[in-house]
Amino acid sequence: MGKNRLEAFSDGVIAIIITIMVLELKVPHGANFKVLLPLWPVFMSYVLSFIYVGIYWNNHHHLMHAVKEVSGGVLWANLHLLFWLSLIPFVSAWMGENHFEIGPTVAYGFVLFMCAAAYSLLVRTLVTHHEKNSTLADAIGDDRKGKISLALYLAGVALSWFAAWLGFLVYVGVAVMWLIPDRRIEQKVVEEEREEADEADERAPS
Amino acid sequence: MGKNRLEAFSDGVIAIIITIMVLELKVPHGANFKVLLPLWPVFMSYVLSFIYVGIYWNNHHHLMHAVKEVSGGVLWANLHLLFWLSLIPFVSAWMGENHFEIGPTVAYGFVLFMCAAAYSLLVRTLVTHHEKNSTLADAIGDDRKGKISLALYLAGVALSWFAAWLGFLVYVGVAVMWLIPDRRIEQKVVEEEREEADEADERAPS
Amino acid sequence: MGKNRLEAFSDGVIAIIITIMVLELKVPHGANFKVLLPLWPVFMSYVLSFIYVGIYWNNHHHLMHAVKEVSGGVLWANLHLLFWLSLIPFVSAWMGENHFEIGPTVAYGFVLFMCAAAYSLLVRTLVTHHEKNSTLADAIGDDRKGKISLALYLAGVALSWFAAWLGFLVYVGVAVMWLIPDRRIEQKVVEEEREEADEADERAPS
Amino acid sequence: MGKNRLEAFSDGVIAIIITIMVLELKVPHGANFKVLLPLWPVFMSYVLSFIYVGIYWNNHHHLMHAVKEVSGGVLWANLHLLFWLSLIPFVSAWMGENHFEIGPTVAYGFVLFMCAAAYSLLVRTLVTHHEKNSTLADAIGDDRKGKISLALYLAGVALSWFAAWLGFLVYVGVAVMWLIPDRRIEQKVVEEEREEADEADERAPS
Repeated sequence: MGKNRLEAFSDGVIAIIITIMVLELKVPHGANFKVLLPLWPVFMSYVLSFIYVGIYWNNHHHLMHAVKEVSGGVLWANLHLLFWLSLIPFVSAWMGENHFEIGPTVAYGFVLFMCAAAYSLLVRTLVTHHEKNSTLADAIGDDRKGKISLALYLAGVALSWFAAWLGFLVYVGVAVMWLIPDRRIEQKVVEEEREEADEADERAPS
Repeated sequence: MGKNRLEAFSDGVIAIIITIMVLELKVPHGANFKVLLPLWPVFMSYVLSFIYVGIYWNNHHHLMHAVKEVSGGVLWANLHLLFWLSLIPFVSAWMGENHFEIGPTVAYGFVLFMCAAAYSLLVRTLVTHHEKNSTLADAIGDDRKGKISLALYLAGVALSWFAAWLGFLVYVGVAVMWLIPDRRIEQKVVEEEREEADEADERAPS
Repeated sequence: MGKNRLEAFSDGVIAIIITIMVLELKVPHGANFKVLLPLWPVFMSYVLSFIYVGIYWNNHHHLMHAVKEVSGGVLWANLHLLFWLSLIPFVSAWMGENHFEIGPTVAYGFVLFMCAAAYSLLVRTLVTHHEKNSTLADAIGDDRKGKISLALYLAGVALSWFAAWLGFLVYVGVAVMWLIPDRRIEQKVVEEEREEADEADERAPS
Repeated sequence: MGKNRLEAFSDGVIAIIITIMVLELKVPHGANFKVLLPLWPVFMSYVLSFIYVGIYWNNHHHLMHAVKEVSGGVLWANLHLLFWLSLIPFVSAWMGENHFEIGPTVAYGFVLFMCAAAYSLLVRTLVTHHEKNSTLADAIGDDRKGKISLALYLAGVALSWFAAWLGFLVYVGVAVMWLIPDRRIEQKVVEEEREEADEADERAPS
């Protein structure tokens, strides 16, 4: 089964998620700059969530690039990831409107954790579906970055109970860590393609 | 006529339907977890509707995979399906905000029934358009699962009049039944492709 | 320049237009069916607008199928069409919420007229860009249906001033007229493809 | 790495941005035309913003057409552009609802400036990624139009402090300047393709 529609549908959902978040930036009453000030926490929350959804799109893009075919299980693992991503606008708005208080900051971290867990599940479902030693399996490796993120989200949630800004800092830190795209897959795919091209050249009636 | 744009447009509409439902999760006032409690029924309703729209996308994906070409009639049968799907966010929100009372739960079941009927109509339009004994016609078979669903939705609607939670349970049951993707088509397509590949191999200048 | 992204972008915008209209169906307070009654005009308005946007998508699909390449002018003629289509949710909601009174029904007809005019402009821009006697030019012919629609919309707007329901009837009539897809282009494309296939067969090393 | 998903995702986000702006045209209470009058500034703001987002989509379309492959850096430069574009609906609504007063008109110009800067950054990232003397590098040239726009936005922001309508006029002027698509790239691509076709012809077993 082709992966094209899976990509197209995921692109659509992620594009909507990343864009409807801006609707939380409610147009203020009044025309001077002072009315923008109370929007500051909502805006900061929007920026962080935009980056997070962007990271997921980027990694999804890289991951699917290495994928050859998808099964029914992969479709559902992907929808499961989209479900948790779809909750980011909600927790993002809740966190922004409450100026990063404890409750919403914990909830934000929890949703980030579930997104990361759903992404790991998707990766594992894909790896199971593909043969061993495939581009994908090689490329993922032991997914150290993913595991560190899961631990950091838990740490962020725990820290938020004491001081919400500490949890927020952890979430920012994880985002920074991910801003660097997953070069491992990129690297592997490039190598694979080169090898395939070489083989094709050898077989070609030169 | 190609099926690509039909898929792309359907992907777009379904992606928007599945995502705007989260807008019904209104950001609560207050920063403690207690303010999340009243959102519980809306959230449950969101989860069920997300799964249902996901099921339709999955089945649409499988169905269109077996389709070779589309006609004007297919375009309209597809839009008819999208129309009923577009009402899911409305009845979902109504059901959630009224804590699964009788009226909205009946309405929810009615829309699910119409979605299923519209899907059946789309399948029949596609089968008519394709020659007999095609991959698609074989794959659909007698569409037993579809007919059972229609009957169950009616049962759910009827049960909702007595106790809304009974109707809700039936809707959950049908969703669970469909979470397993339509392996019949998947199976047939795989076989077909293998046969085509075999034929191609035979014709190839080995 | 390829037409793929033009199609993808138009699909996206039209998918969003057709879907956000359902947001005008505000979730009613109360759980009995009586609270649905006041939604009747908004729902009727939604159904008509859904069909109209569906017609435009269908015709756009057929039109672009016959197109080989697009120019900068075509991109803008297409955006111009999307602009007027984007106003349909606005006038649709205004008409529904005011129970088909004169003002909104006139406005609805005006926007339909501008959409039809923008579509005509797009067709003419495409025909200009393509050589004479091309599939597209042949297929469009004298665009009688388009011209009749423009006249009928004007008639509908005029009639709305006297009795809004008369105008509404005219809009419904035009929609019914268009529900039958533009078989002329479909026909031409099929013929063209058959001829191309024949030519390809002749050239092939049989 | 392919550019298809980058295009598809950007199309999705831009399609949503251009369409959700119409939601700012709040349906008025009352059915006579007089109630439309107060919407005039919001509508004007919508038209200008629609054109601006359309310009960005057009230019993005032209730019990506000349691109052969994308890197991780390009993905992020693209997301950065989408971020600033996503703020257009917000400043557009603020400007419209406040009848083009100084504050919102300055903010509108600032966001336009940041969009233009982000677009420049994307272009530069793409040029860096491609070899020198490539179609893209040649086609961009010294990007005079982009630099003039940046200067004009700054001028518009400055003028808005004295009289908002002056700034607004400048923004309209820049939009008019860009309505003419970037023929330089279009030209170069056409030439390149012709050359490639020629080379292919020469190599073909005529």
